[in-house]
Amino acid sequence: MTIGTAPSPWPATLGPAQLQAIDMPTPYLVTDLSAIRDRHAAFRAALPGVRVHYAMKCNPSPEILRALHAEGAGFEIASLGELRTLQAIGVDPADVLYSNPVKPPSHIAAAHAAGLWRYSFDSPNELAKIAEHAPGAAVYVRLRVDDQGSAFPLSRKFGTDTEDAYDLLLLAERLGLRPYGITFHVGSQCLRPDAWAEAVDTAGKLMDRLRHDGIELEMLDLGGGFPARYTTGVPAIEQIGAVTTEAIDALPYRPPLLVAEPGRHLVAEAAVLAATVIGHERRGDQNWLYLEVGAFNGLMEVLQTPGGWDYPVRSSAPAGDLVPYVVTGPTCDSSDTIGYAMMLPEGVRTGDVVYLGSTGGYTLAYASHFNGFAPPTPLFVGARE
Amino acid sequence: MTIGTAPSPWPATLGPAQLQAIDMPTPYLVTDLSAIRDRHAAFRAALPGVRVHYAMKCNPSPEILRALHAEGAGFEIASLGELRTLQAIGVDPADVLYSNPVKPPSHIAAAHAAGLWRYSFDSPNELAKIAEHAPGAAVYVRLRVDDQGSAFPLSRKFGTDTEDAYDLLLLAERLGLRPYGITFHVGSQCLRPDAWAEAVDTAGKLMDRLRHDGIELEMLDLGGGFPARYTTGVPAIEQIGAVTTEAIDALPYRPPLLVAEPGRHLVAEAAVLAATVIGHERRGDQNWLYLEVGAFNGLMEVLQTPGGWDYPVRSSAPAGDLVPYVVTGPTCDSSDTIGYAMMLPEGVRTGDVVYLGSTGGYTLAYASHFNGFAPPTPLFVGARE
Repeated sequence: MTIGTAPSPWPATLGPAQLQAIDMPTPYLVTDLSAIRDRHAAFRAALPGVRVHYAMKCNPSPEILRALHAEGAGFEIASLGELRTLQAIGVDPADVLYSNPVKPPSHIAAAHAAGLWRYSFDSPNELAKIAEHAPGAAVYVRLRVDDQGSAFPLSRKFGTDTEDAYDLLLLAERLGLRPYGITFHVGSQCLRPDAWAEAVDTAGKLMDRLRHDGIELEMLDLGGGFPARYTTGVPAIEQIGAVTTEAIDALPYRPPLLVAEPGRHLVAEAAVLAATVIGHERRGDQNWLYLEVGAFNGLMEVLQTPGGWDYPVRSSAPAGDLVPYVVTGPTCDSSDTIGYAMMLPEGVRTGDVVYLGSTGGYTLAYASHFNGFAPPTPLFVGARE
Repeated sequence: MTIGTAPSPWPATLGPAQLQAIDMPTPYLVTDLSAIRDRHAAFRAALPGVRVHYAMKCNPSPEILRALHAEGAGFEIASLGELRTLQAIGVDPADVLYSNPVKPPSHIAAAHAAGLWRYSFDSPNELAKIAEHAPGAAVYVRLRVDDQGSAFPLSRKFGTDTEDAYDLLLLAERLGLRPYGITFHVGSQCLRPDAWAEAVDTAGKLMDRLRHDGIELEMLDLGGGFPARYTTGVPAIEQIGAVTTEAIDALPYRPPLLVAEPGRHLVAEAAVLAATVIGHERRGDQNWLYLEVGAFNGLMEVLQTPGGWDYPVRSSAPAGDLVPYVVTGPTCDSSDTIGYAMMLPEGVRTGDVVYLGSTGGYTLAYASHFNGFAPPTPLFVGARE
């Protein structure tokens, strides 16, 4: 078996030789934990003084949670279910941020009982829920910010404007809660480095106004959206970090705690999905490859991007001229198609293995057994001795 | 608790009194098996002489498979995983159609070993795979037909034209396979009653031509696509049946076996999903309701329909003027939104229960635990004594 090269990001630790050495049936998803540790270190270096709270929704595998916990990262959760997963590996709920702005009351109560003390919100109704079920908790408001540079904008569902945010933080105090901080989300896979800086600037003005009114916020949370590389270029974390750090340094009031919630950025590039070709066809003037993994058992982001998702690809087929393939999944569903012009050697055939890079984030997190096809088996390498 | 009425299809057996009597925590998905039996009977009456092979991908719950098996239905599978589920409840693989046109070679071999003898195909490569791994098998060709009237067209990924289909059936014979039949798929949730009749007509011409060349096909498979009701009208099965039966009666050559592969049509309307409201908000000029179930833990078809999916809704809130709500799921993902103008009483609040009807198909089949939110607990009523 030979594995071709591709002009794309690819974990150095999961090159052709390493993949060839993996002796397990496909489909599998191999994740290099050392790549995640490196990524975490690079993030901290690029954003000095900013604590990482990993957005575990992106990939809640216990192996990854343990690795980041050992590196000193905190966590960000969307539900009580996620908190329970963290508790099972020994994470202290006090080190967890509950950043879903709209939470089930029963989840708030149980998280409060477990010792989680920091909750996001963006409305008076949510404040009332928190005041009732987590009395005295620290609360941070979610600002609505410009998310036009991101692959998945979030501003319709969550966030409030700065005027309302000001009123809400005062209301929090009246409800016996602790006005604690500000957060925002520039949107997932954000490609505009200025997005965080602009949001920091907006948050800074609000924090300064609050300070003049006697409320000193303790936390500024830069949210997530930090991109991972697929086949097209994205801003480097050093570039995002430089612009954002400049904005932080220019804050009229700098809160004692700065955090960020990277998810995809830390884990996506650390994994490779191996799937066997189950059929190859010429349909009209297109080459089609049918893989044993598709949208429903591992690659669901393709459903949200009608043009397909640009995972970097390699294959076990002999090297040859690269030609465009429609690469589709194994189910009877036509929307189960991964990409419409993925470049692979023209000799790829049934039985070959296709390797999809940058598959560590938002893959197994929502894989199902639809049509009876199992998700890839997870495999981890690079654990610390 | 009172449950409002809605001008929409709703299982008579899952009305307000019955739902109120259900004593289990939300979220749950309650399915009335008697409604599925009735639907199966109505389908058979509307299409006399057509055997049902249930498309289990739509909802592979063993309770539903058992109920349809007891009614005499056969099954249609997309993978070996689905065959194993059927075998576990005692279905004979000989009564199963393997209608996924592109299959993993290992699945073909294992299905063949289990006694499954009928396989669909639409290409020479697939015929070669079947000839190698299921020698002597009966094969039926998938025609590409007009699917423009359906919610989910399928013609890009599967199907071949009649000229190629003719050649492929002759090739099948040369490969030692048994040219067995023709199938097609008009697309999921097809709203054009003529679609099946037109495809039957096309298939009839091909069958007639083959008969003149000495090949008498044994099966015509009408595929799926039979619609379920949500909030807007769909053609009744009696209407589709009348037009289709007329086309069948006009066939120049009528094969001894006629089958169809309904999925959604048999099961969708038989189920109601109950989800508690976890937050209600006024955002801009819109009312937003946040439910504990959304796209990722039960309602994934909304990801494929950007305008939302028109599930009929009721709620436990006091009756009142119906106003439009944006109804969204519990995750931090903005695409996790179910509908943008769902009509509910203006008094709906956090803690009320929202009931989504017509949720029996394509719901639990691809639900995940994304963001840590569990899928609804399945509950079945109406089993035969």
